[in-house]
Amino acid sequence: MPESNGGYRGASYELLSAKGISVGDSIIIRTSDSEVAGLLMPRYESAGADHIVIKLKSGYNAGYEVSKIREIIKVPAQEGHQYQKLSNPIVASQVKDTLPQLALISTGGTIASKVDYRTGGVRAALTASELYSSVPELARYASIEPEMLLNEYSENLGPEQWTLIADKIAEKVRSGKYSGVLVSHGTDTMHYTASALSFALQNLPVPVVLVGAQRSSDRPSSDAALNLLGATIFAASSGLTGVFVSMHAGTSDDVIACHTGTRVRKNHTSRRDAFESIDASPVALIRGDSIEVQNPHPTGQIAVKNKAAYSVTGENFTARTRFDKRVALMKFYPGFDPSIISWAVSAGYRGIILEGTGLGHVSRACFPSLQAAINSGVLVCMTSQCIWGRVRMTVYDTGRDLLDMGVIPLSDMIPETAVVKAMWALANTKDLKEAKDIMQSNIAGEISRSIPI
Amino acid sequence: MPESNGGYRGASYELLSAKGISVGDSIIIRTSDSEVAGLLMPRYESAGADHIVIKLKSGYNAGYEVSKIREIIKVPAQEGHQYQKLSNPIVASQVKDTLPQLALISTGGTIASKVDYRTGGVRAALTASELYSSVPELARYASIEPEMLLNEYSENLGPEQWTLIADKIAEKVRSGKYSGVLVSHGTDTMHYTASALSFALQNLPVPVVLVGAQRSSDRPSSDAALNLLGATIFAASSGLTGVFVSMHAGTSDDVIACHTGTRVRKNHTSRRDAFESIDASPVALIRGDSIEVQNPHPTGQIAVKNKAAYSVTGENFTARTRFDKRVALMKFYPGFDPSIISWAVSAGYRGIILEGTGLGHVSRACFPSLQAAINSGVLVCMTSQCIWGRVRMTVYDTGRDLLDMGVIPLSDMIPETAVVKAMWALANTKDLKEAKDIMQSNIAGEISRSIPI
Repeated sequence: MPESNGGYRGASYELLSAKGISVGDSIIIRTSDSEVAGLLMPRYESAGADHIVIKLKSGYNAGYEVSKIREIIKVPAQEGHQYQKLSNPIVASQVKDTLPQLALISTGGTIASKVDYRTGGVRAALTASELYSSVPELARYASIEPEMLLNEYSENLGPEQWTLIADKIAEKVRSGKYSGVLVSHGTDTMHYTASALSFALQNLPVPVVLVGAQRSSDRPSSDAALNLLGATIFAASSGLTGVFVSMHAGTSDDVIACHTGTRVRKNHTSRRDAFESIDASPVALIRGDSIEVQNPHPTGQIAVKNKAAYSVTGENFTARTRFDKRVALMKFYPGFDPSIISWAVSAGYRGIILEGTGLGHVSRACFPSLQAAINSGVLVCMTSQCIWGRVRMTVYDTGRDLLDMGVIPLSDMIPETAVVKAMWALANTKDLKEAKDIMQSNIAGEISRSIPI
Repeated sequence: MPESNGGYRGASYELLSAKGISVGDSIIIRTSDSEVAGLLMPRYESAGADHIVIKLKSGYNAGYEVSKIREIIKVPAQEGHQYQKLSNPIVASQVKDTLPQLALISTGGTIASKVDYRTGGVRAALTASELYSSVPELARYASIEPEMLLNEYSENLGPEQWTLIADKIAEKVRSGKYSGVLVSHGTDTMHYTASALSFALQNLPVPVVLVGAQRSSDRPSSDAALNLLGATIFAASSGLTGVFVSMHAGTSDDVIACHTGTRVRKNHTSRRDAFESIDASPVALIRGDSIEVQNPHPTGQIAVKNKAAYSVTGENFTARTRFDKRVALMKFYPGFDPSIISWAVSAGYRGIILEGTGLGHVSRACFPSLQAAINSGVLVCMTSQCIWGRVRMTVYDTGRDLLDMGVIPLSDMIPETAVVKAMWALANTKDLKEAKDIMQSNIAGEISRSIPI
């Protein structure tokens, strides 16, 4: 066993050490009545010492009690994903320089990377050659220049990192070298970052496409290669500009959906088609080589279908990349304690996004705290925890009372986008009236319906 | 105008007063180029004085500027929903006493009720005769005994009201008089109450069916009558016991779905089919008279298909109806401030349900506060904000670290159910180990998958 024993100790540690098996090795375990093959997984520290856990081909983990294991065999590592079985690796210099140039900014997702089972961490594909070797089809559509900016699980990315990423994209855009920018990203918070970039980078002359993978590239069911390929085709050839998220459209490996950055949500913990456009169609579907535009980017001014019509150093491009993290997203639930609102005010929060029930409601018990928050200059906005649909606060007394208090209804803006937008708005103005106007104006497709509140 | 002028003032107040028009009246408004009919809606206080708002037949509201109104006419009130156009009202004494007896506990939803436009409030159908007059088909399936327990918008119902409702149901069940109990409820938090009743009332000898309406019964698109009819047919004839939610299965008026009380969520702000079973099929579909059982109630012990097999005063029936509201539901987002966790601990919270990202993650920045919360005896559990899928905390470092800290993974329990269950668990034990075991055991279908964490 290496220095890091992957959490194994006691009986399991001894058995694995005796056989020279390390975390990440392909092994076969035989018991009196079964034989299974898989990869040795790390063990979390608090788990019992008498089980060995392997990741099966199905992607699921299974645990085996050491005393019941009759035989354990280390086997040569299996071949990885089909896109990695390349006998003649492509080197970057072989890629035609007449192809569109794309920048790929890596932030730490599993996309085009390998999971290192020793640490559980993700090792990014750092060079263009590594990238083409992983997904050789890329070389048919674009010349890609990768750069590693961050290497983080996306749950650790927040407002500070959004600024870093946005500034890096702005740098790439302003260089005039690229027809598009790809951002590889962990999927956990990819939709929050997509929203952040949508507000930070306006009038983009090129597409910015976030792409992730729900399953790491060592798994037969990995979506990494196809997502990256779809993102590349879209960025290189769609002629659309703005911020998008490119992921599997369904569970089969044939269609990629490109979503508007502000209208997309991760709606499943593990499915490859976890990302869905909320109350909207995806902007485009990528099927093989073909791009089917479903729904032009909802901010008319930046949806340009004809590539010739925009200049790579677009004059109107703006990068306002700061965020004020003093915004709380509060999901209401029965029994919700209004003193959380008072706490936020006293802790210096400048904005509160309520995730209310139904059409945009919270209990009457919250009214005094909300009124106090608004009176002290906190921006309080309403979204719905239903996810689909829109708040309509004039239908019931509760909504009307909240409007009278000064709560800002956000139509069909999803809560995840609303918290990001409030952080951006409050970083860009000290004027509360202006912040309210920003929240209620459609900047990047985040409000798709303009029927009255 | 009556004392309550519905928020109108200035020019709009004067015009309405001159014509003797009150909020809730049917009116016709003519402008130079249009004529529209609708109901006069109340105006919220902060709105401008120069518009009159009516609710159109489509259910949408439209505002008209007073200066542009050429004529405004009060017309006799329109006929309501088709189910209310009954020429020969049925009186309770005419309903056959050989039919199954159901109790209907009203808590304040719009179901089988009329919206009072003067207050915006809901007037419940208080007597059985009123009920049969509203939905005459009910009299074919059951003899229903209504009782008004509460009259509240459901955003104002919380743990205290769950106890009241559960105690009232227990009383009805123990009386031995009823084949089932219907609970009419506002839809905003109906799924939270359904979860609460699922934990509070175990081994129910009869079905308890919550039913609501997304659109009030004055609207042509109202779902009130059909939802109540479906709930009644299911409660009277399915032979299944447990706690269920009965609502439209689709947007057409032909199929009602009965969902397991712990696996259902309001997923749309306004659609009639807003309620969906998460990661499960509905228990049954009601199509006309027929009950199609899709998925027996997941707690095997209480899914009894043969009515003869259970006794109305079932010996194993338990009612543990208290809840401890010192449980916080915290949705994680990028930039989430760990000091909210510390605040909750110091404020005396006994449980925290995290709505993490993806497979059950929060940022590393939260680790110290979470560890401190756990060390001080707070029950900390993990669910996913993805809604669909399940937490799997052994896949990435982040999840393993959280498990090592003592965070309890809740599989595919939805966050809304998890917060209710924690409130119930902590009211029923002071022992943290026991509370953890309760959280991780499937009591009422809230954990549908038993594959390893």
